[in-house]
Amino acid sequence: MTTKKEKIANGYFQCNKRERAAFELGIKLGALFHQFIGAPVSEENADILAKAMEKTTERQAYVKSAQVRINLERSKVKKEKGIFEYTTLTEDMIEAKVLVEFDGVRAKGVLKYIEELNYPLMYIDKLDY
Amino acid sequence: MTTKKEKIANGYFQCNKRERAAFELGIKLGALFHQFIGAPVSEENADILAKAMEKTTERQAYVKSAQVRINLERSKVKKEKGIFEYTTLTEDMIEAKVLVEFDGVRAKGVLKYIEELNYPLMYIDKLDY
Amino acid sequence: MTTKKEKIANGYFQCNKRERAAFELGIKLGALFHQFIGAPVSEENADILAKAMEKTTERQAYVKSAQVRINLERSKVKKEKGIFEYTTLTEDMIEAKVLVEFDGVRAKGVLKYIEELNYPLMYIDKLDY
Amino acid sequence: MTTKKEKIANGYFQCNKRERAAFELGIKLGALFHQFIGAPVSEENADILAKAMEKTTERQAYVKSAQVRINLERSKVKKEKGIFEYTTLTEDMIEAKVLVEFDGVRAKGVLKYIEELNYPLMYIDKLDY
Repeated sequence: MTTKKEKIANGYFQCNKRERAAFELGIKLGALFHQFIGAPVSEENADILAKAMEKTTERQAYVKSAQVRINLERSKVKKEKGIFEYTTLTEDMIEAKVLVEFDGVRAKGVLKYIEELNYPLMYIDKLDY
Repeated sequence: MTTKKEKIANGYFQCNKRERAAFELGIKLGALFHQFIGAPVSEENADILAKAMEKTTERQAYVKSAQVRINLERSKVKKEKGIFEYTTLTEDMIEAKVLVEFDGVRAKGVLKYIEELNYPLMYIDKLDY
Repeated sequence: MTTKKEKIANGYFQCNKRERAAFELGIKLGALFHQFIGAPVSEENADILAKAMEKTTERQAYVKSAQVRINLERSKVKKEKGIFEYTTLTEDMIEAKVLVEFDGVRAKGVLKYIEELNYPLMYIDKLDY
Repeated sequence: MTTKKEKIANGYFQCNKRERAAFELGIKLGALFHQFIGAPVSEENADILAKAMEKTTERQAYVKSAQVRINLERSKVKKEKGIFEYTTLTEDMIEAKVLVEFDGVRAKGVLKYIEELNYPLMYIDKLDY
């Protein structure tokens, strides 16, 4: 069921359903990345932080599901214990999968650090499947 | 000219050029919003903050240009002077236009607070024009 | 036990223990506020987001404990269901208590929206108790 | 001149003037760090981003001045041109000095990456001088 508010919102868009799904997916990956980068993270809180990243993403418009993994292996933080032994969440540590659906069109996107690019790539893995 | 790195990146995508442009546009709007929301803002620094928002957006992949306006009229902050007379950047204060171009396809997006939705809508204003 | 790294860090400070505890407390409250403001929030994810805010705060240097409550009553979001029925975390929704301890000196701080100030005040509630 | 709102705010604090200045300084450094970490940065926009960081900091309560430098030398980004040749602002790239004054007490703080700590240290450089 499309609500009245959704119909109003849809009126602003100049694109087809597939393009809309791609756009919505992009928004969510951009948001996920820039909202949480910099959060203090360690082995002790990585799971709960990842969970919050999933749940805040899933709460947004058109998101069906989100999976987030924080890869601490990439972190500069040593295993030694101590007051300074945590790090801030950086671009290379996030692995995320987000699934959006707009008007029957599903789009699945990935955020992942690609070694050969030295870059946290966000890409469309599947569209309209 | 497509660089070697861009070709590698393109290999990850399962979509056409228009969908890619829409996706890249979504990323930039989501990033813009979530990176800067919460920044302390007042009449004295709104212009420089808006400029930084434009320039950080323009530095990202496939962005041709970005325009940002911070609408302080919406702010709860009163005109009185004083130590607490500033606010934090909220979703209803940002008006942004971003233009991306991927492989010849241009996509223009807008972020704007829509009164009747009570929501900061991000939408595709023009695609492949 | 003060580690070698802590001793090195302490060498940079020009202040007494109480002032140091106050400073560390300020850092944590400023960080908490600006890291998470803007996160998408609703009744469905407020608890997990608050938990992540607590756990990322507790992971930082000298923090003993943190308690965070997200007050959705303040939110503009209506109870109606729908795709746009969530909001972003704003300054007036966060209620946080953070306890730090530096070299035996405890400092307890609060972040709370004070109606008569129209301002999210961060203050030292107790010091060296 | 202390305004009525400031007096109300001061009533919440259980500490002396020096401790208050130290606390306010901590807030500003924590805020600066966590608000802007993750912003896209390159040689082309580092200056304007640093300027916005200064101006948003200066707008906050009790801040007299702020200086921010973004050290791109630390960045992983290569000098080659290309679509992916920018990075996100990380903890090791920020060098900031902030001066606050509360009721005649000045506190100067620094945020700086300390190599031997492998940590972005925030410290009180001078207090009540």
